[in-house]
Amino acid sequence: MSNLKDVKEVEVFHAGNVSVDELPWIPYFGDAKFKLLKANPVTGQTVTLLCVPAKMQLPAHFHPGTVIVYTVQGTWRYLEEPWISKPGDMVYEPAGSKHTPIAVGDEDVITFNIVEGTLDYLGEEGEIVARDNWESFLKRYYEHCAAEGIEPIDVTKF
Amino acid sequence: MSNLKDVKEVEVFHAGNVSVDELPWIPYFGDAKFKLLKANPVTGQTVTLLCVPAKMQLPAHFHPGTVIVYTVQGTWRYLEEPWISKPGDMVYEPAGSKHTPIAVGDEDVITFNIVEGTLDYLGEEGEIVARDNWESFLKRYYEHCAAEGIEPIDVTKF
Amino acid sequence: MSNLKDVKEVEVFHAGNVSVDELPWIPYFGDAKFKLLKANPVTGQTVTLLCVPAKMQLPAHFHPGTVIVYTVQGTWRYLEEPWISKPGDMVYEPAGSKHTPIAVGDEDVITFNIVEGTLDYLGEEGEIVARDNWESFLKRYYEHCAAEGIEPIDVTKF
Amino acid sequence: MSNLKDVKEVEVFHAGNVSVDELPWIPYFGDAKFKLLKANPVTGQTVTLLCVPAKMQLPAHFHPGTVIVYTVQGTWRYLEEPWISKPGDMVYEPAGSKHTPIAVGDEDVITFNIVEGTLDYLGEEGEIVARDNWESFLKRYYEHCAAEGIEPIDVTKF
Repeated sequence: MSNLKDVKEVEVFHAGNVSVDELPWIPYFGDAKFKLLKANPVTGQTVTLLCVPAKMQLPAHFHPGTVIVYTVQGTWRYLEEPWISKPGDMVYEPAGSKHTPIAVGDEDVITFNIVEGTLDYLGEEGEIVARDNWESFLKRYYEHCAAEGIEPIDVTKF
Repeated sequence: MSNLKDVKEVEVFHAGNVSVDELPWIPYFGDAKFKLLKANPVTGQTVTLLCVPAKMQLPAHFHPGTVIVYTVQGTWRYLEEPWISKPGDMVYEPAGSKHTPIAVGDEDVITFNIVEGTLDYLGEEGEIVARDNWESFLKRYYEHCAAEGIEPIDVTKF
Repeated sequence: MSNLKDVKEVEVFHAGNVSVDELPWIPYFGDAKFKLLKANPVTGQTVTLLCVPAKMQLPAHFHPGTVIVYTVQGTWRYLEEPWISKPGDMVYEPAGSKHTPIAVGDEDVITFNIVEGTLDYLGEEGEIVARDNWESFLKRYYEHCAAEGIEPIDVTKF
Repeated sequence: MSNLKDVKEVEVFHAGNVSVDELPWIPYFGDAKFKLLKANPVTGQTVTLLCVPAKMQLPAHFHPGTVIVYTVQGTWRYLEEPWISKPGDMVYEPAGSKHTPIAVGDEDVITFNIVEGTLDYLGEEGEIVARDNWESFLKRYYEHCAAEGIEPIDVTKF
């Protein structure tokens, strides 16, 4: 059909590799730090690497959505659960879970994390005192880049 | 292979119809009410029908995940947005959106809603004062059924 | 910090209303037709309205992902399932389901559909003979607009 | 309310650790093998570890949904893309991507993979010749366990 010559083209996104070396460690709690590998502003999904010093405990928090954690290095657990996660293990967290992570071995812990939605930090009465999500992680990344004079990569691009 | 006779069977779930008549309207805010059609305790997804009286305003809230709304009846808007949604329209809410719904026409509003994660009600300073999710909606459903002597349907089953 | 003056801004997407009147019905199978309300090229999610003439049967198909259907008008069923879906009902289809839809009442059927992934049409031996997804629906939309001289809306925008 | 004493309880799932040592390597293509860590029969999501011998090429395939790959060991690429993925890198694959994986270094490749939906193997004309998904991976796992006299873990449980 001649009048189809003006059909708009459909662009298909390609699989892309995020090179871990090109991303800085961003300060988080105390000496804990993270790398932001991907942030999806539409779905709220974030993909991060988290590094937690040996023995360190992180704040108790709640997740509205699911979380998948792959343990890259070190051993860790949640204060509320009976298991210990070690390198090669995977932790699946159904939506609505609450817990307090702690690095339990002699080695710093590195995990690869896929989070749907937010991470809500809880006060002593279980109330929400602060939150992180794709937006706040991205802000921390941009602020860290600005402070360090690093050119940020667009981790929201697909 | 003879030793394969003990292979565990893989069960595939079937498409199921949720009959709207078999579900009660559950009290929500004031005269607003909802029906809980499906709740997924693993992903945190909820599917609901919401009925809001004409002119009524609902509390400001935040969504960690995405929301899809199909307008079945009536007209409504968010105080923060320029558009009005009417029957047949669809509202797509990217993760991390905040807004205050209001029914703007003469008719009660009915919407069909798919929510990933929670619905966090905000105080005057933007702080989170309460939240709803698959778990609290399911509790409200069970409590309403117990109070009214209704046998609840298992809306978490697939 | 003065060096933070160059922090990149984080843009948050807003909830948007898709006005059903601004979208054309696009020819599908025979006299069946659809409106494409949203297509997400990253996740593969599509949101559509489907209109199927009374008594019409659609091809058998398979879904790799989940499907949520809200019945707006008319009654329909799957040849493989015992239930009939009527206005106000919701059908939840777990990933990996196969079925053959048929409009069973006197009225044309209209459904509101949220599909994750593809719709794979099956031959007589269950083999995949064709498929639709966000990409092919978008192509059909653009081709229909070009053929009819309609300016398409960008349904991939959030 | 006294009649609320019969309220059904809402069960919240807990975060669970999948211990990689308790899962066997399951034969896949040639000497390639996988471990099935989690399969969700509702959403179709699978979480796997894949081990591909150095230099080996896998069949071309298509994904209806998204894929996230974390490279644990070795280096690999897609024939269709310019990048090489190395340990610590992450590959994000938007829905509808097609590609041919190949292990390119001297080391066997191990990846951690989160797949939404199916993996459709393509013939020379791009036609679908076979497919894997949560169901077929689970069948392979159960068959392997039966053949080897291993008691399978329920990887569909949350």
